[in-house]
Amino acid sequence: MKLKDLAKVVSGKLVGDENLEISGVAPIEEARNKDLVFVLDSKFLASALKSGAAALVAPADSKIKGKAALLVANPRLALAQILHRFAPKNQFIKGKHKTAVVADSTKIGKRVTIYPFVFIGENCEIGDDTIIYPSATIHDRVKIGRRVIVHSGARIGVDGYGYVQQGSHHIKIPQIGNVIIEDDVEIYANVCISRATIGSTIIGSGTKIDNLSHVAHNCKIGKDCAIVSLVGFAGSVTLKDHVYVAGQAGFNGHITVGENTVVMAKAGVTKDIPDNSVVSGFPAIDHKKDLEIQAILRKLPELYQKLK
Amino acid sequence: MKLKDLAKVVSGKLVGDENLEISGVAPIEEARNKDLVFVLDSKFLASALKSGAAALVAPADSKIKGKAALLVANPRLALAQILHRFAPKNQFIKGKHKTAVVADSTKIGKRVTIYPFVFIGENCEIGDDTIIYPSATIHDRVKIGRRVIVHSGARIGVDGYGYVQQGSHHIKIPQIGNVIIEDDVEIYANVCISRATIGSTIIGSGTKIDNLSHVAHNCKIGKDCAIVSLVGFAGSVTLKDHVYVAGQAGFNGHITVGENTVVMAKAGVTKDIPDNSVVSGFPAIDHKKDLEIQAILRKLPELYQKLK
Amino acid sequence: MKLKDLAKVVSGKLVGDENLEISGVAPIEEARNKDLVFVLDSKFLASALKSGAAALVAPADSKIKGKAALLVANPRLALAQILHRFAPKNQFIKGKHKTAVVADSTKIGKRVTIYPFVFIGENCEIGDDTIIYPSATIHDRVKIGRRVIVHSGARIGVDGYGYVQQGSHHIKIPQIGNVIIEDDVEIYANVCISRATIGSTIIGSGTKIDNLSHVAHNCKIGKDCAIVSLVGFAGSVTLKDHVYVAGQAGFNGHITVGENTVVMAKAGVTKDIPDNSVVSGFPAIDHKKDLEIQAILRKLPELYQKLK
Repeated sequence: MKLKDLAKVVSGKLVGDENLEISGVAPIEEARNKDLVFVLDSKFLASALKSGAAALVAPADSKIKGKAALLVANPRLALAQILHRFAPKNQFIKGKHKTAVVADSTKIGKRVTIYPFVFIGENCEIGDDTIIYPSATIHDRVKIGRRVIVHSGARIGVDGYGYVQQGSHHIKIPQIGNVIIEDDVEIYANVCISRATIGSTIIGSGTKIDNLSHVAHNCKIGKDCAIVSLVGFAGSVTLKDHVYVAGQAGFNGHITVGENTVVMAKAGVTKDIPDNSVVSGFPAIDHKKDLEIQAILRKLPELYQKLK
Repeated sequence: MKLKDLAKVVSGKLVGDENLEISGVAPIEEARNKDLVFVLDSKFLASALKSGAAALVAPADSKIKGKAALLVANPRLALAQILHRFAPKNQFIKGKHKTAVVADSTKIGKRVTIYPFVFIGENCEIGDDTIIYPSATIHDRVKIGRRVIVHSGARIGVDGYGYVQQGSHHIKIPQIGNVIIEDDVEIYANVCISRATIGSTIIGSGTKIDNLSHVAHNCKIGKDCAIVSLVGFAGSVTLKDHVYVAGQAGFNGHITVGENTVVMAKAGVTKDIPDNSVVSGFPAIDHKKDLEIQAILRKLPELYQKLK
Repeated sequence: MKLKDLAKVVSGKLVGDENLEISGVAPIEEARNKDLVFVLDSKFLASALKSGAAALVAPADSKIKGKAALLVANPRLALAQILHRFAPKNQFIKGKHKTAVVADSTKIGKRVTIYPFVFIGENCEIGDDTIIYPSATIHDRVKIGRRVIVHSGARIGVDGYGYVQQGSHHIKIPQIGNVIIEDDVEIYANVCISRATIGSTIIGSGTKIDNLSHVAHNCKIGKDCAIVSLVGFAGSVTLKDHVYVAGQAGFNGHITVGENTVVMAKAGVTKDIPDNSVVSGFPAIDHKKDLEIQAILRKLPELYQKLK
């Protein structure tokens, strides 16, 4: 591929030889001859210019010397656009792999890819262009939208964890609800999403949930949320739209988190959070206040000596 | 189903039309015409009475106006009893699915259900009426009791994480023990339970372990414990009976947690805990003391200003 | 097996009857007649001597009365050596199980064992003597070295979690890199390792990663590291060699952790850590300083009263 072809893909300003051959994309520290590298942040510009790469993609205001470059408004967007062109072709045939087991009562949309060892239970619906990777499990009555990606080993529609105490025993409450995964959702590997006791557990359109996270029964996760790995939601949590949740955060049951909220790593959210908040700590509080407390904590030994 | 039939199921006091037709159960906010709703807590009574439901199940002392109702001593127990009547029938045939792989030396009890892609290794025992959901793995020599439910992707009898250091290398210690899962246990999706180095890792009867939790080698988990999601036990932890462990809690190896103890979310238990405790924080301490410290922490910035 | 045979296996000093028959190895509290028990720490010597065991393996300086014994420099190493002799033989045949699905373009080494329901994608390489347990998934272009053990349900080469924000939507960045697992690595059950966006996610030789941990895209994990369960690494973390990470610890993206470092349980590492550190807490700091702060925190209620 020539640099001028890539310039069209990203609508970028081309600096240097437009006929330069680009054969691959590499991290800055590993780049060699015909590689293209990405300067996602200006602080990496100097090392990119010194690297073994043939050319770079850099922010529009970058000063380029000694290499060809594509200058773009958003290098991260350019990364997404260009990597599509360099993605290795996969030979896996669209459709249901012969080892997959899908109940007769389930409706499969068009151009759906179902990898080996996928189990899909009864009365499910799988929307058009959805991909289900190996060994994922879709339990009975789960509805999955269009262009959804379910990664390997994800478990969708597991029984909710619901019991009633009788003496010292836990009596199981049947979990007769379902899970609804809306369009354009991505559920990563080994994520578990539990079915509702009654009604539905819902993952809103465009939301992405990273590896090894857990969504309990009757949660309502909003649209375009980003939830990273090892996050846990107890039952009946409501997350409004565009919420970002960092790794290993956890949520008490029956609370509501307002839209555009950021929940920092390892936070433990114990109560309702208003829109547009940034929270951290356990119990999670306003992040600025948490930082203030953290700063004093570090001075505590010194303070304690003075007080004594 | 008629309301009078459901009254018998729950031994409830019927208020209103005993011949009322009930066709389903719904969350209060979604209920329509022939739906029944559950008032699990009196604070939801008003919204249940205003809902679109035909009838409600409510605590015995509830004041009912304008709807039919079943008044019961324990609405949560009634939920379990009534949902059994409304649970969709599943067509999956009892027995071993043809894709499952079970070693010849393994003994399978009566009325056991084994879903697709289940692997059961050598010299295992699976008790009567146990259900093993898709893609679960039962490694060699694991003993599973009666009426156990193993959810999709659970891994039982994984090698314990055991090494001896030689220079800078980790030399694997063979893990020749097993796992014993007693009767009426429920192991949720993607849970991992490691086999003992020697002897057994034991999950006591009636215990329930939610999604994505980890039980290391040689743990002895008591009877009727409730362990929720993303909990981690290091090796050789003893949990006595009726312990409740909330989400993302963790346990150091070689400690004992007394019976009827509650371990709060995200707690890190580092030493033995006496019976009937409630602990939180990391290191986990008495929950009341932890709350006291938390309250002062929130005042710390103000206090610090005053001190300066 | 006779005690004198085992003495040769561990190069131990034999005390008592060298022709004593040993039929098994048991935990101290469960040992009976012909069992051997291990005294891994001198504090267990008294109970081992009182146990039902026929003989014990104990530290070289132990005073033995009333039982036969093997005295060794390193009882834990002796444990590894002797358990190999007592490990039950497994009938599972080496090679690829007929239910496993492996792409034609993938190269499988010699004496590789592939259990049922394993999926291996395109253009992978699996080194000699590697074992892949049931239902593990190896995605396209992953390279796995020699003598690697991949436990059940591990997911290697999952797409990295990478998006570019466009308005309120997350646009997926193709993840065209791979994962490289070097020799002698052990990846436990349900662990997830994400492929690099570009370049490689690397797990260094001899490293062991316990159940349910997550390694994000472009991480470089060093050699002979020990990473236990439910640990999370955000993207592009570098762990140098011989790092020990305890349970439920987490790492911010784009940081470097120096060699021989110990990261304690539940720590949240937010910035670069020098070699030979011991860190704990969140944000993770020097463990001694963290302990000092913890000690004062416990006195905080009392201190607060005095101040008032």
